[in-house]
Amino acid sequence: MSYHAPVADIAFTLRHVAGLDRLAEEGAFPDLTPDLVGQILEEAGKFAGERIAPLNQIGDRCGAQLVDGAVRMPPGWREVYRAWCDAGWNAVSAPVDCGGQGLPHLVNAACIEMWNAASMAFGLGPLLTMSAVEAIAAHGSDQLKRIYLGKLVSGEWMGTMNITEAQAGSDLGALRTRAERQPDGSYRLHGTKVFITYGEHDLTDNIIHLVLARLPDAPEGTRGLSLFLVPKVLVADDGTLGARNDVVCTGIEKKLGIHASPTCTMQFGDREGAVGYLVGEENRGLTCMFTMMNHARLAVGLQGVAIADRAFQQALSYARDRRQGRAPGWSGEGMSPIVEHPDVKRMLLEMRAKTEAARALCYAVAGALDRAAFAPAAAARASADDVASLLTPVAKAFSTDIGVEVASLGVQVHGGAGYVEETGAAQHLRDARIAAIYEGTNGIQAVDLVSRKLPARGGQVARGHISELRGILQQARSANDSGLGGTAVWIGQSVDALERTTHWMLDAVETRPADALAGATPYLRLFALATGGAYLAKKALAAMAELRAGSTDPHHGLRVASARFFAAHLATAAAGLEAAITEGAEAIGTAFGDAA
Amino acid sequence: MSYHAPVADIAFTLRHVAGLDRLAEEGAFPDLTPDLVGQILEEAGKFAGERIAPLNQIGDRCGAQLVDGAVRMPPGWREVYRAWCDAGWNAVSAPVDCGGQGLPHLVNAACIEMWNAASMAFGLGPLLTMSAVEAIAAHGSDQLKRIYLGKLVSGEWMGTMNITEAQAGSDLGALRTRAERQPDGSYRLHGTKVFITYGEHDLTDNIIHLVLARLPDAPEGTRGLSLFLVPKVLVADDGTLGARNDVVCTGIEKKLGIHASPTCTMQFGDREGAVGYLVGEENRGLTCMFTMMNHARLAVGLQGVAIADRAFQQALSYARDRRQGRAPGWSGEGMSPIVEHPDVKRMLLEMRAKTEAARALCYAVAGALDRAAFAPAAAARASADDVASLLTPVAKAFSTDIGVEVASLGVQVHGGAGYVEETGAAQHLRDARIAAIYEGTNGIQAVDLVSRKLPARGGQVARGHISELRGILQQARSANDSGLGGTAVWIGQSVDALERTTHWMLDAVETRPADALAGATPYLRLFALATGGAYLAKKALAAMAELRAGSTDPHHGLRVASARFFAAHLATAAAGLEAAITEGAEAIGTAFGDAA
Repeated sequence: MSYHAPVADIAFTLRHVAGLDRLAEEGAFPDLTPDLVGQILEEAGKFAGERIAPLNQIGDRCGAQLVDGAVRMPPGWREVYRAWCDAGWNAVSAPVDCGGQGLPHLVNAACIEMWNAASMAFGLGPLLTMSAVEAIAAHGSDQLKRIYLGKLVSGEWMGTMNITEAQAGSDLGALRTRAERQPDGSYRLHGTKVFITYGEHDLTDNIIHLVLARLPDAPEGTRGLSLFLVPKVLVADDGTLGARNDVVCTGIEKKLGIHASPTCTMQFGDREGAVGYLVGEENRGLTCMFTMMNHARLAVGLQGVAIADRAFQQALSYARDRRQGRAPGWSGEGMSPIVEHPDVKRMLLEMRAKTEAARALCYAVAGALDRAAFAPAAAARASADDVASLLTPVAKAFSTDIGVEVASLGVQVHGGAGYVEETGAAQHLRDARIAAIYEGTNGIQAVDLVSRKLPARGGQVARGHISELRGILQQARSANDSGLGGTAVWIGQSVDALERTTHWMLDAVETRPADALAGATPYLRLFALATGGAYLAKKALAAMAELRAGSTDPHHGLRVASARFFAAHLATAAAGLEAAITEGAEAIGTAFGDAA
Repeated sequence: MSYHAPVADIAFTLRHVAGLDRLAEEGAFPDLTPDLVGQILEEAGKFAGERIAPLNQIGDRCGAQLVDGAVRMPPGWREVYRAWCDAGWNAVSAPVDCGGQGLPHLVNAACIEMWNAASMAFGLGPLLTMSAVEAIAAHGSDQLKRIYLGKLVSGEWMGTMNITEAQAGSDLGALRTRAERQPDGSYRLHGTKVFITYGEHDLTDNIIHLVLARLPDAPEGTRGLSLFLVPKVLVADDGTLGARNDVVCTGIEKKLGIHASPTCTMQFGDREGAVGYLVGEENRGLTCMFTMMNHARLAVGLQGVAIADRAFQQALSYARDRRQGRAPGWSGEGMSPIVEHPDVKRMLLEMRAKTEAARALCYAVAGALDRAAFAPAAAARASADDVASLLTPVAKAFSTDIGVEVASLGVQVHGGAGYVEETGAAQHLRDARIAAIYEGTNGIQAVDLVSRKLPARGGQVARGHISELRGILQQARSANDSGLGGTAVWIGQSVDALERTTHWMLDAVETRPADALAGATPYLRLFALATGGAYLAKKALAAMAELRAGSTDPHHGLRVASARFFAAHLATAAAGLEAAITEGAEAIGTAFGDAA
């Protein structure tokens, strides 16, 4: 159950799909050579494999334990977390002026994949801290920045996001936690938040909660939400820790997976009220949340990639060792390794191709976020921001869906041993399952895609994206390399289907919203298959070019194989998805009566 | 987390898809009126819902516990098991001459679905006993039958199947457990079996193990396996219990799910050798296994149906209660129940349609097994046996695959609550996952389908099956009912694709076996989608006929809705699967080098 970070494939994807070179060329990161990025990724991979990966199974077995309102993390976790912070990994893409390293999001995205592949429960905590940094850096007062930002960037303190309440999950308008203004400019909060990730733990001496709450005179719905910073331990102006704030963890969930990630019920203001400080403006809390949303959703998508890759590595290793039967064409002694059996090979190729496609999608989003932040021209920044917004729900939902699918295939490759917890394959499936739910369920992502992202700028962003995919296909057809087989044909058909359904969807969302919503999930899947397939073709073209230039890197052949498999076995689902989207709306008209 | 057995839909499927009426008309079961079957199903449903379902979550939490070589079952399990046996449920389809009720397999299949929906870990044990009854009834000596059969039929003793060894999972030729002939005609067995379901427990005073082992002079491979009956406690000729046999449980697995089903490592002959009795002939053990195989695989398929239905019921109930946001067209007060949101409705319809299709497939197999056993004409029996053999791997693999898919959707419908174990949705996913693995992994089922079942009788059985599907489609087109929407068109296209890929596969399996095996799993899926879709259309036609005849049964509308949804959203995958099967073989040619 070791983890070997796929540094070579990540670096290749960063360069050939996500536009890392372009970012460096454009001048925002003049020192960021491929060599330097390679060194960073190597170091991150080493830490992930050597230090974090060994925590994963013990974390699952021991879980986070709540004792008298305090959460005890599993053995070894605190030490590794501290070492991870000391090495600077919490600060990779944080701004330089608050102690960060100011590297592109692309580099941090690669690191996030590795931390989460090594242990998703471990990798999850810092994601919340990074979101808190982002929110405070963008919207916090100078005082809040001065007191909190440095320690959140270093990881000395961790951050949380307190959004969900029992009656308000996907529907934030229903939130009830209230905040009252105090004479000194601070606020007092009262309310109960549920499903708060890393809401309480013993990794750090303080925990900085960001909390959505409602002022007494606030409008109803989401326009009446404000964002507050509520520290677990109050902090004096000079940064020293004072009294405990009126915030307690009253329970942690017993979950299917990510057992070491404490999912807390947080009680704010059970006594005199929890002291909080406004972040941004009153009633603009949701705007602050939106600042973080693309990054947070991308990070969860990366968790899907991460767990898929981990599950793939483990399944491949097992399939090479385990011997059963004799595969067709097997000429070795005795039984063949099961990796030689065509159906097992098919499963492994499906695992790998899905993982690579999701990785390409996620890194493309990260690249767009970087260009949106750092491109020299304002128009380029705006355009990149549009692309990032369009692709984010696709990357989040597809990557986390395939995370579950790939982890489930990983169990299957192991046969009966996969069902035994000791093997570790089942843990990946249990862990992966949450990523399709949190940070906006995948159904919500699909609704976001068709009802907000697609119609943006009259559909122009989506049309631009489809043009980009057509450009890749044109290159694939021009290359005319037999190694690609029917890749260009199959991906071309999926892009055609994407274009037709995009037109259909742009019309439907205006005129027949229920039909549009009924087709939202299959549309998102089609979008991801066409995009992921084209990106894999792009990787394959780059790999073939390097092979022609004399490279003997054995990864290149696998890149071509992934693109072909994805095209023939997965992107071919496009025709069926198109039918489900455009013809299937009526089939969802029936309500479930009492007789169901 | 209550369970309401879907008695009406089961009975409807038995009559309109599985041929229950025909079975009665042909004379084998003259007293078996629809009313009587309805009463039996009602009673079974009541027992399942009232007595077994409450065991499910406690079984998951407590699990089966191994203490000093003995397995303690969870609280309440022994009492309910005894009551279940006392009510005669273990004996539904066992032969009358050994104490069974001699009812058709169809009726028992319906019961099996209900026991397993109520608690898969509970339902699993008796499946093994039923298999043991079948093997002993078919191949056991008169003495073995006299001593063991009655108590296995009543359920006073339970049975097990001891096949797998650590080095021999899917590959039975690699089994090593040895058996030595004794002067008195008995045998002594030595060896270690793993993954033995219900190998040890405290539900009954004796456990009858059926064990595959190898005689010293046996040929290598599967032709050298013999089947032995090895009781946990030795039984005197008059049926009284004597000394403990030399069989011990040395460990139980900590598994992803079905925690209350003890999965045992069984040590045979650690001391003087475990006393065993030959079942059937020496070296013909695999023939005896084949006797049971169709029934056992069907039973596991029914577990897939069962867990899918349970997950669906729970998700629907949650979706009706939980309120979030406002669905398009919602005119009620405040937030809508989430069942009104199109994407949630889509998930629920997918769950229901897949469950119904798998149910139809499984009951079609059960009906074929009944006709194979009871049809008056020998030719009809042989033909039904062929159909059962062809459809069994499809029913097993598809039903258990959708069991996992539906249970996973059930988690998704619950959102964050689905990830919390207390909710119970996650348990269904954990439980369901094993059914795709045991009793022949679903990959093995696909290989069995294309390499053995399809080529049987020169492909004639498959062609006959496709003709049957075309007959249903003809009826659907003739009915020309707008309620069916495009059902006939979409299912028609899937049957066309099935016919073309069947020709391709029959050729490939002869000439390019690796290509055939590479396409086996997508081919099985296509087979199931075309067949399941046609069967749902058949149900919908029967429902529409009853509606026209004045029925006001609210289930009928849902049957039509399921058929439409399945056609438009699921059977439309046919085109993509056809491409994956016929074009995708080459894409699986690449071996995984060291660089993967």
